[in-house]
Amino acid sequence: MDVRVAVAYHSGYGKTESLARAVARGAASVDGAAVELLDVTQLDADGWAALDAADAIIFGSPTYFGSLSADMKRFLESTVDRWVDGPRWKDKLAAGFTNSKTMSGDKLNTLFDLAAFAAQHAMIWVGLDLYPGWHTADPTQSNVRTLPAGAPMMTDGDSDGSTDLNRLGSWFGAMSQANSDESADATPPSSDLATGEHLGRRVAEMAVVFSRGREALAAVA
Amino acid sequence: MDVRVAVAYHSGYGKTESLARAVARGAASVDGAAVELLDVTQLDADGWAALDAADAIIFGSPTYFGSLSADMKRFLESTVDRWVDGPRWKDKLAAGFTNSKTMSGDKLNTLFDLAAFAAQHAMIWVGLDLYPGWHTADPTQSNVRTLPAGAPMMTDGDSDGSTDLNRLGSWFGAMSQANSDESADATPPSSDLATGEHLGRRVAEMAVVFSRGREALAAVA
Amino acid sequence: MDVRVAVAYHSGYGKTESLARAVARGAASVDGAAVELLDVTQLDADGWAALDAADAIIFGSPTYFGSLSADMKRFLESTVDRWVDGPRWKDKLAAGFTNSKTMSGDKLNTLFDLAAFAAQHAMIWVGLDLYPGWHTADPTQSNVRTLPAGAPMMTDGDSDGSTDLNRLGSWFGAMSQANSDESADATPPSSDLATGEHLGRRVAEMAVVFSRGREALAAVA
Amino acid sequence: MDVRVAVAYHSGYGKTESLARAVARGAASVDGAAVELLDVTQLDADGWAALDAADAIIFGSPTYFGSLSADMKRFLESTVDRWVDGPRWKDKLAAGFTNSKTMSGDKLNTLFDLAAFAAQHAMIWVGLDLYPGWHTADPTQSNVRTLPAGAPMMTDGDSDGSTDLNRLGSWFGAMSQANSDESADATPPSSDLATGEHLGRRVAEMAVVFSRGREALAAVA
Repeated sequence: MDVRVAVAYHSGYGKTESLARAVARGAASVDGAAVELLDVTQLDADGWAALDAADAIIFGSPTYFGSLSADMKRFLESTVDRWVDGPRWKDKLAAGFTNSKTMSGDKLNTLFDLAAFAAQHAMIWVGLDLYPGWHTADPTQSNVRTLPAGAPMMTDGDSDGSTDLNRLGSWFGAMSQANSDESADATPPSSDLATGEHLGRRVAEMAVVFSRGREALAAVA
Repeated sequence: MDVRVAVAYHSGYGKTESLARAVARGAASVDGAAVELLDVTQLDADGWAALDAADAIIFGSPTYFGSLSADMKRFLESTVDRWVDGPRWKDKLAAGFTNSKTMSGDKLNTLFDLAAFAAQHAMIWVGLDLYPGWHTADPTQSNVRTLPAGAPMMTDGDSDGSTDLNRLGSWFGAMSQANSDESADATPPSSDLATGEHLGRRVAEMAVVFSRGREALAAVA
Repeated sequence: MDVRVAVAYHSGYGKTESLARAVARGAASVDGAAVELLDVTQLDADGWAALDAADAIIFGSPTYFGSLSADMKRFLESTVDRWVDGPRWKDKLAAGFTNSKTMSGDKLNTLFDLAAFAAQHAMIWVGLDLYPGWHTADPTQSNVRTLPAGAPMMTDGDSDGSTDLNRLGSWFGAMSQANSDESADATPPSSDLATGEHLGRRVAEMAVVFSRGREALAAVA
Repeated sequence: MDVRVAVAYHSGYGKTESLARAVARGAASVDGAAVELLDVTQLDADGWAALDAADAIIFGSPTYFGSLSADMKRFLESTVDRWVDGPRWKDKLAAGFTNSKTMSGDKLNTLFDLAAFAAQHAMIWVGLDLYPGWHTADPTQSNVRTLPAGAPMMTDGDSDGSTDLNRLGSWFGAMSQANSDESADATPPSSDLATGEHLGRRVAEMAVVFSRGREALAAVA
């Protein structure tokens, strides 16, 4: 009955890994979701098996010089035998996250790189369902909206964005910003990690929906 | 029990409209799918209601000067009240298609424009599950692969690509190429229209899966 | 002897216009540069003449729903007669800027939209020569580097980025972030306007280099 | 008096290398241009010196799974010491090319990857000044236009595009399409190689303009 979510990431200095751990925590918070956290530079046969078995794969990479990292791309290229005779990853859900030291930092292009890859595997792309945070001078006014009851898109703002979800304004995937003079213990900030957690949770929830739908269709077939 | 699929397009000279009609045909070929074909420059209250009620919206635009058309973008901007107090289109499926007169023609950027929009609405992006066509000198060798039984990713090649699905090599959405000296009666070619049809069918099928999954979860809630 | 720089922008609420004015100021600060600031929704024959005569055109648009605005795109489409029989804008320099309310906000995609357009006109794209700002916890450490004498890439950091050039981390063009609860008098902040000013100056300086080069080649031809 | 153009490429199966050689030929055809062709997986100290000395660098990569190759990205990442203490490559011209087996094939995204990189180095991006080819049913009508005397943007069409420049419709850089069942001796076709040659020539010519402009300004300084 479980859905399986794999978080496949590369991290150069531990900061993307912090975000990856947050994404995995979010996915694991969903009832019935089993989560694997996989460093793509250390993949063994079990890791590949986890990827092949996953209902959803969430890909994460630092943004280096405006695109995904070479280590991440090496992994993506190594999936070719899942593609060429299949495609074995068709209809899995996919999502993405990325970290860099600056606020915008061309991170969107890394998410496009990841999404273009996922589309070639015929995966289905899930982004963030979060209004943007951190865009007001008056923190008490941030993200005050008329929301339908129970709506999950909501953020609590303050003037430095430190408690805002979706602090950087991204929807295609989760972005974090990590100060260049701090270690991965201190940065990226908790707001960005919470945003990653939200992405993980959302992807796992959507995987449950998708999985239940397949079961229902199989039952009548 | 039906799922509803809306095809929301702009067409300058009728060629993107031909592709839109193919996409709609493909969606309508799925059991239980109700399809609305909507010219976004002519949207009335019924059209907006169809969009709001849709389980999936497939967006189509010509590529002009490397991005989506101004008319398409005007429509996208006019969805802001579905976003600001909701977001009312959250978790709908989304997909995209585009036409231009050349083979590549920066059409990928139009698909990125559409997908970035859909992500801001918290929609879920569905691409093409088709191997690329038209990439061999020997037409009998095109797309010969070991496919699992019943696998839908398959194309039949010939030397000018005229019967290949996914003739142009696109996965993020469906692309067509329409000759500049022919009218919309004659171009884009049937292979590109069949590719659009395939996209419509796939999106409707995925909408059924998601819809059944939600019903199953609601039944136990 | 003058070089001519046109700044062609659309602004919905005055914030992109503030950035446009900053870009124009920067260009005008270069010796021998004549600058025209043009609202593309109000273009008359003189405006078009200024564009046609320009050595460099800097395009600016808000980012709405992840791409350039419909009003901006309408203008871009209306340049088609400069393209179809020419292309008359070939080899002009081009650059871009964009504003939105959030830090990242998919603004990179708007710059890609503008650059894809400029490439179709065979224009040459000039970005920002600025290290990124605002990426350290310790403001005294921000952007301390060993720079060659006179190097223009340099920023002075503080903890909220308010005096940093390239505060958001963008190189393809200039980005600004404008608070949603402030008017165009108060936002985007001075750091973002200074970044726009830097872009304008850089483009005008590069236009001088290209113009002098053409004169030198014409003199020996 | 020479300008120096470096062509820095990765090629997996020799096809991108064929395009790289064409680009280099085009650059070398310009009076006074010295050209270095550099495989980025084999760079030695002389290769790095050639890159550092170049007035223009033209970057080429296959498109694998929708973005630049891992080998190419590894090279781009290894330029970081040219960036961090400089940036030493500032104001060099840059351009890009890419090959894949399909017509569109997400190749535009690889060009965006390369251009985003170049922008971070404060390089200036030069695209193709070519009308698109291969977009008519009647080959005698292809690219018939009223062109100003001497205009370099011109293509000669035929029904399979085999003699068209810019056969695939790309402006951000040069694209080629190589059949998957032919070796690098036979594919990509001559039209795509001629397009690459055109790009090389254009970049070298622009480098001459830029270089002469700097000399003229230095002479009066």
